[in-house]
Amino acid sequence: MIIMTQKPLILVANDDGISAPGLRALIKVMNEFGEVVVVAPNGPQSGMGHAITLNSVLRCDKVHIDDGPQEEYSCSGTPVDCVKLAINKILKRKPDLCVSGINHGSNSSINVIYSGTMSAALEGALEGIPSIGFSLLDHSSDADFSASQEVVRKLVANVLKEGLPEGSCLNVNIPKLSLKDIKGIRICRQANANWTEEFVERRDPTGKTYYWLTGTFQNYDNGEDTDEWALSNGYVSVVPVQYDLTAHHLISKLNKQIL
Amino acid sequence: MIIMTQKPLILVANDDGISAPGLRALIKVMNEFGEVVVVAPNGPQSGMGHAITLNSVLRCDKVHIDDGPQEEYSCSGTPVDCVKLAINKILKRKPDLCVSGINHGSNSSINVIYSGTMSAALEGALEGIPSIGFSLLDHSSDADFSASQEVVRKLVANVLKEGLPEGSCLNVNIPKLSLKDIKGIRICRQANANWTEEFVERRDPTGKTYYWLTGTFQNYDNGEDTDEWALSNGYVSVVPVQYDLTAHHLISKLNKQIL
Repeated sequence: MIIMTQKPLILVANDDGISAPGLRALIKVMNEFGEVVVVAPNGPQSGMGHAITLNSVLRCDKVHIDDGPQEEYSCSGTPVDCVKLAINKILKRKPDLCVSGINHGSNSSINVIYSGTMSAALEGALEGIPSIGFSLLDHSSDADFSASQEVVRKLVANVLKEGLPEGSCLNVNIPKLSLKDIKGIRICRQANANWTEEFVERRDPTGKTYYWLTGTFQNYDNGEDTDEWALSNGYVSVVPVQYDLTAHHLISKLNKQIL
Repeated sequence: MIIMTQKPLILVANDDGISAPGLRALIKVMNEFGEVVVVAPNGPQSGMGHAITLNSVLRCDKVHIDDGPQEEYSCSGTPVDCVKLAINKILKRKPDLCVSGINHGSNSSINVIYSGTMSAALEGALEGIPSIGFSLLDHSSDADFSASQEVVRKLVANVLKEGLPEGSCLNVNIPKLSLKDIKGIRICRQANANWTEEFVERRDPTGKTYYWLTGTFQNYDNGEDTDEWALSNGYVSVVPVQYDLTAHHLISKLNKQIL
């Protein structure tokens, strides 16, 4: 259990950009828990994964978007840039918590590796900060975040009190349901799922071909311990996420195959 | 063991861009093994991680850069976009192998999550293609890739013959040594290491602040089974990489903590 001697310092980031309603909903709840500093991209950065800006400069401006006690910064970089810049240049001390979201759309299963929201949380974990990414399974700009705010309240209270194991963060996905219809919270593993891509191919006004990435989500996993199962069955899914990508179970096999 | 009834079809990608010497060195070796199709970014995409382009269109043009039997395409997107576009729009069938690199600089340990080179290989694995990312520990544009080419030759021959387990790819890092000074190949786990960021803060000609991301690499891992140990001791490191980010060992602990 963590005993706080001062008000918690909370870093808030996202990937939908500083004006996104999901971020606004998250800030409102976080103001109940501590001193809030928001460092978020100045525009949409969905699908940026763990990208960082190496080949150009970063800008970061103090802004005022909503009334409230929070301090806010709009950053030209990716979600991971926002977290790095916050920790190294903006915050006066290491934050007690890093939260990212609330994302407009799912970051369950394989989406975790493409998600800027989850990469911001993972970067927080890498820096030794208890970190949580929140996503609501509703892409619409007027999505109702009220049930999600209750989920955030419950999980943030828990993590501020109990902490999280070093080197891990939480990937929290929330079904598009009213609070009374949400059945509860399940701790899950990432489902084995993937996207089948279909590129839309079009011609621009000069006749030159361009492509838009699109795709269909495929769940190959029948397990009832997965995030996909939980979400399909009305539960909030919580997946503990870590950044060791080693396929440990293959090391001895590869020793035989390659050496 | 895989028995090929036709010449292998090999997809080549990278993150340093289509003109990078490391890519050119990789193409030369791959031409010895099969029919080669290159789909690479039209400019540097280092540090792009698993980013995909969702908010703008993609362009992809057939180009001729070097003489040789390979077919080449220059793509406006990220390394992962290149692999997705190749598989879905450019290649006539699913490739037998996807190789990415040779990256100018290390992708060992934590760099795997920031690396466009490795994300291209991981995307190949996600699509069910045996995939390998190659990186040389030398950032210079006139780096000597001749020893790396020998390493590529050995590993590609092995993987074309034996395959790789479903859902995994290889992260191969090569020390900056001549072939005679390389002690061998080690199958490793990803070292527990990280970057300590230091942002360079400057003023532009109008007096406005901007930042450049920089940092110092920190290895916290004393294990002799890590990629960092192998590379420091003159070995090529081979880490099997997978994309299930679940911290499986924390599921029961979180069940007690949160539910």
